[in-house]
Amino acid sequence: MEKFIGYQCSVCGEQYDAKKMIYTCPKDGGNLDIILDYEKLQTINNGELINTTDNSMWRYLLLLPVKDPNFRNTPLRKVGLTPMYAPKILRDSLGISDLWIKDESSNPTASFKDRASALVIARAKEIGSEVVVTASTGNAGAALAGMAAAVGHKAVIFAPKSAPQAKIAQLLVYGAEVLLVDGNYDAAFDLSVDAAEEFNWYCRNTGYNPFTAEGKKTAAFEIWEFLIKRFPGYFERQVNVFVSVGDGNIISGLHKGFKDLFAIGQLDKFPRIFGVQSTGSAAIANAFEAGNEDIIPVHAETIADSISVDLPRDGLRALRAARQTNGAYITVTDEEILQSIADLGKAGIFAEPAGATSYAGLKKAIENNIIDRESITFVINTGNGLKDIKSAMKAIPAAPIIEPTLEAVKKYLRNR
Amino acid sequence: MEKFIGYQCSVCGEQYDAKKMIYTCPKDGGNLDIILDYEKLQTINNGELINTTDNSMWRYLLLLPVKDPNFRNTPLRKVGLTPMYAPKILRDSLGISDLWIKDESSNPTASFKDRASALVIARAKEIGSEVVVTASTGNAGAALAGMAAAVGHKAVIFAPKSAPQAKIAQLLVYGAEVLLVDGNYDAAFDLSVDAAEEFNWYCRNTGYNPFTAEGKKTAAFEIWEFLIKRFPGYFERQVNVFVSVGDGNIISGLHKGFKDLFAIGQLDKFPRIFGVQSTGSAAIANAFEAGNEDIIPVHAETIADSISVDLPRDGLRALRAARQTNGAYITVTDEEILQSIADLGKAGIFAEPAGATSYAGLKKAIENNIIDRESITFVINTGNGLKDIKSAMKAIPAAPIIEPTLEAVKKYLRNR
Repeated sequence: MEKFIGYQCSVCGEQYDAKKMIYTCPKDGGNLDIILDYEKLQTINNGELINTTDNSMWRYLLLLPVKDPNFRNTPLRKVGLTPMYAPKILRDSLGISDLWIKDESSNPTASFKDRASALVIARAKEIGSEVVVTASTGNAGAALAGMAAAVGHKAVIFAPKSAPQAKIAQLLVYGAEVLLVDGNYDAAFDLSVDAAEEFNWYCRNTGYNPFTAEGKKTAAFEIWEFLIKRFPGYFERQVNVFVSVGDGNIISGLHKGFKDLFAIGQLDKFPRIFGVQSTGSAAIANAFEAGNEDIIPVHAETIADSISVDLPRDGLRALRAARQTNGAYITVTDEEILQSIADLGKAGIFAEPAGATSYAGLKKAIENNIIDRESITFVINTGNGLKDIKSAMKAIPAAPIIEPTLEAVKKYLRNR
Repeated sequence: MEKFIGYQCSVCGEQYDAKKMIYTCPKDGGNLDIILDYEKLQTINNGELINTTDNSMWRYLLLLPVKDPNFRNTPLRKVGLTPMYAPKILRDSLGISDLWIKDESSNPTASFKDRASALVIARAKEIGSEVVVTASTGNAGAALAGMAAAVGHKAVIFAPKSAPQAKIAQLLVYGAEVLLVDGNYDAAFDLSVDAAEEFNWYCRNTGYNPFTAEGKKTAAFEIWEFLIKRFPGYFERQVNVFVSVGDGNIISGLHKGFKDLFAIGQLDKFPRIFGVQSTGSAAIANAFEAGNEDIIPVHAETIADSISVDLPRDGLRALRAARQTNGAYITVTDEEILQSIADLGKAGIFAEPAGATSYAGLKKAIENNIIDRESITFVINTGNGLKDIKSAMKAIPAAPIIEPTLEAVKKYLRNR
């Protein structure tokens, strides 16, 4: 079944044919939404919509703009369907009865970005592209390198030379061709776009390639599937989704997922989507606050490197994701992010700073009575804490050193 | 149904009642095997043996010596049922048709050890112990801390003060009480045993607590379930399992799992179990080579910290796991381990050094014609590469730095 029928620009609304090979709107550079054949999809009954024998994001293949990529028994087929945790200690401490943490750290390369990269690799195979390229210093690059390796595809990653060696190591282990660019992220971004055009590579860049959001929307499908199974009357309650926001592509992807479900008559009510940014990287939150759609670049500085962004490449759609669903943007400080790493850890969930940012946003939303304590609330941890041990070490006090004697243990326990 | 009926010493064969609170044999300090009620378990038919609605190690609850621990929707219930990958690039390069990599890096705390810790926490709850203690510098401690946090249990970890801060950070984020001992691992081990006795804590120490192997045996169950589903005639072929060995408890646990299945008539033929050690930490391999059961301590030194062990605490059973299944012990150098990190990476699997050691052993086994290329071979990656980025960086050459111009990219590609 052909489901993918075209693109639509999120700025000017212009539509383009699915056969056209484009990334952003040729007129104004706006991000493109993928249009599916919603009429045809409406006729599919609920039972066929989800392939429940597939324990990954590929269970929603019917709603994705690619054909079955095959590659069974590879990491590409293990992306998604991530755990949904009900952390008692956090529920009790916040006084919120239906808190669920969606933990993306168990994805093959340990972050949410695997969803986008898996889909882009499937698309690359479909259009016969043999090399996929991206600019990235972190999770997106690792995800592309890992997913490409999983299926024997070639990946080229451009990263600013200032990128931490540890993050680069993961890309190199996955066998990607990594080129460190003597310049900043923007220089790497531009060079990857130019190289893609020059060498006929397929460009995965976030906020540029329209298919990344299509992979990311599968997290919305998982939330929806969880809702209809566990809370059949969810539409009578307030439902919230909290997610951290950097370039804005994850929150746009989530919104797109819910919009797709609504368009085919499967979603009764939109969850309220809350974007959480660091106060040090708040370009989209600033526009939300100002009540307009002008995303003004900032000079980003935050411990949460995965969402540290001067110019969000998917800012407009990210802004609308919150505004159109009666959600909001919330900003949190680095101290609040670090505290949230410790909070989640106590529930057995180890998050990188950007992953804990969403939880910090929830705490603030509850303090400020922005959400109802009786609501059903989902918080997404977008990345594994093992990705940034340095920040983890700042989140907790150091361990004491004692003599190897029982006496020393007793003394420590007494004085604790 | 009561399944756990007693303990048996692996050295002297003495049996002890299940109600007795013991760790190792009171007579000779030997490791204890858990005895299940095999007669009763034989009467259960195949269809009931596995709870296929549970996508975790808890699907084998009927074969575990604990009651249902509940704690649904927590990380404790997401341990196990790890991916089984068919890496084409590795199959091709080794010329082996049925190679399967079992990837434990997707467990909640990113290592195989979650299986043991999940089971020990379930046991602790059952016997009413409120604090669990262990000596560990790495994965076992992280697993205990994570699983304890998952269910709101208290964990105390004794680690040598020389343990890398990064590894300690994960324990602390999970909210464990971490005490750095001014001494080596043995001092931490002894102190944890003493403290457990003094304060009535439950001690999880590997190669000491008989329940750790009961958690680890679930990986054998998963291999068995995979075999009977995918290769119904597996008993007519050679089946091999490769696993890295440090203290010997994982390989013992795997062996115990197959023995349990055999005892209840579910396993037709034992897979050959291959233990792989670093040449720098080869106490058990040395005894295998010598053809006796004398495990002589070594001064361990290897890049694979998770299997760097002077005195293996579960050496005897580990030795027998290979010897009794017509397997073998294989040793590999640090260079071979690093090369295997790069090999696995090219298939999209990111392993820590100890995790890649098993694959290095397989390569050597094929070179030396120890296994048949037509066999069905399982290789276990025991831990996530993110746990040891420093070693990953040694496994691959550094990335080149280029000017941010297309010309520079072209030049690089030409000269590559």
